[in-house]
Amino acid sequence: MRLVTFTRAGQVRQEVGALDAEGAVLDLCAVEPLLRGQTMIDVAAGEPALLDKLRQAAAKAPVVVDAKLCAPIPRTPKNIFCVGKNYHEHAKEFAGSGFDGGAKDVVPPFPVVFSKPHTAIIADGEPILGHLDPTGGLDYEGELGVVIGKGGRGISKADALSHVFGYTIVNDVTARHLQKRHSQWILGKGLDSFCPMGPALLTADEVPDPTQLTLTTWVNGERRQHAPVSDLIFDIPTLIEAISAAITLEPGDLIATGTPAGVGIGFNPPVFLKTGDVVRIEVPGIGTLENRVA
Amino acid sequence: MRLVTFTRAGQVRQEVGALDAEGAVLDLCAVEPLLRGQTMIDVAAGEPALLDKLRQAAAKAPVVVDAKLCAPIPRTPKNIFCVGKNYHEHAKEFAGSGFDGGAKDVVPPFPVVFSKPHTAIIADGEPILGHLDPTGGLDYEGELGVVIGKGGRGISKADALSHVFGYTIVNDVTARHLQKRHSQWILGKGLDSFCPMGPALLTADEVPDPTQLTLTTWVNGERRQHAPVSDLIFDIPTLIEAISAAITLEPGDLIATGTPAGVGIGFNPPVFLKTGDVVRIEVPGIGTLENRVA
Repeated sequence: MRLVTFTRAGQVRQEVGALDAEGAVLDLCAVEPLLRGQTMIDVAAGEPALLDKLRQAAAKAPVVVDAKLCAPIPRTPKNIFCVGKNYHEHAKEFAGSGFDGGAKDVVPPFPVVFSKPHTAIIADGEPILGHLDPTGGLDYEGELGVVIGKGGRGISKADALSHVFGYTIVNDVTARHLQKRHSQWILGKGLDSFCPMGPALLTADEVPDPTQLTLTTWVNGERRQHAPVSDLIFDIPTLIEAISAAITLEPGDLIATGTPAGVGIGFNPPVFLKTGDVVRIEVPGIGTLENRVA
Repeated sequence: MRLVTFTRAGQVRQEVGALDAEGAVLDLCAVEPLLRGQTMIDVAAGEPALLDKLRQAAAKAPVVVDAKLCAPIPRTPKNIFCVGKNYHEHAKEFAGSGFDGGAKDVVPPFPVVFSKPHTAIIADGEPILGHLDPTGGLDYEGELGVVIGKGGRGISKADALSHVFGYTIVNDVTARHLQKRHSQWILGKGLDSFCPMGPALLTADEVPDPTQLTLTTWVNGERRQHAPVSDLIFDIPTLIEAISAAITLEPGDLIATGTPAGVGIGFNPPVFLKTGDVVRIEVPGIGTLENRVA
């Protein structure tokens, strides 16, 4: 099931719904009273039985004609965990760009994890505020996002996928010069609007093997990134084990798993985003996440 | 006024109170009904008039005999913003330790900012879970914490202090080997219990000039760190301007401003914390934050 968070015209209140095959929003709350007042985090924290009820509700739910999508998780419990240099070809292009002058290893020996605050999250269709990077180094990074269901600390690789509630798409928008300048990455990557997320969350029961997913990114219709998730250096179970080793993960926590080769900084010379550019990221099964640089 | 968050014996509900001169918790809710059900974040977001009411309430409030302190902000809206290498002498000792092999600059040209999730926060007196660092590199970093009141983006240096609600003490506990291994610092610094905070929040009206504050850290009674906040490389207004340039700060957001010289990694050979060690950090006016390694 593809779950979404949405608002209705003229309303501020966010609701959880589902997408039908044509991408229309289904009004699950209309047929499943248990869902009323619940957020996506509540659903992620809920029992699998709740998900069964939602699936039954989806079969008979009416379409919301005035739905506007929000990010699936508009406010994550913690900052979003993001993984750097987690595809081999991207790690090479990043090293080749010279941006990472101090790094000894092209491929990191351990996962490189940083964070973006919830204030960076925007929905499919909302503008990326390019003017917040005054240094002219705006770049995109299409990524698969993993949403935690059952939380915990010390989750083993073997158990990791049972803690995944679902998958979404994240654009790890980056101000490259700020990323470099500040050494640690939150100020170059955590800017307001620099975390487009969506359009939907594909529940984990429909993804028996996430390595079979593929990710493609276009800028103004030109294909820039295309890779199978199986190319990850540190796979999803490894990331969940590494992060949860000493940090308690909570329902709704999000891990952006890293970006494949083909980002703007990988070109020689670099090709950064400019006002009006449209970044479109697709993961078949989840949908497409499209945002324009304002 | 020194505000605290506390619970009563047998209760889970957290309340906002104040400390009297002897360190007893005053039951502000008992005399100020406006405060009931409010968190420290609500108070930070509130109007200065609310603070006046709390001050009046403190003058006649009874003592809570069974109060147990929580961290002043047990759950920050975003991950805590932490600043690395922000005292000259500490930047030197860090470079001298060889831990930062790739760094060209001893003193960073721009603020180095990373984050710790709220799951790392513990109160004064609670144990630091040393076993979560299996690599034997446990270290302390006494720091002044700045709590945001009025939020915003694009806050100028000139306006910055008017956005500060108050000051607290933070121990930026660090697993040095994990910090190095993962390159970006959240996995080496964001571990559960690695952000002791407290004991109280000193409201900004009582701190006309935060550079006049001093910070001292003892380990098992031995003085290890001692510096005036005036030694900061990037001062508090500069940090608020840099972080808020593109990230919207919210009431209750916390900035840990960096640690002075004298951390364990600065010794040759390094002196790491071990089970049973007690770290005590004092900022006169705020109080002392003391935590034992469990």
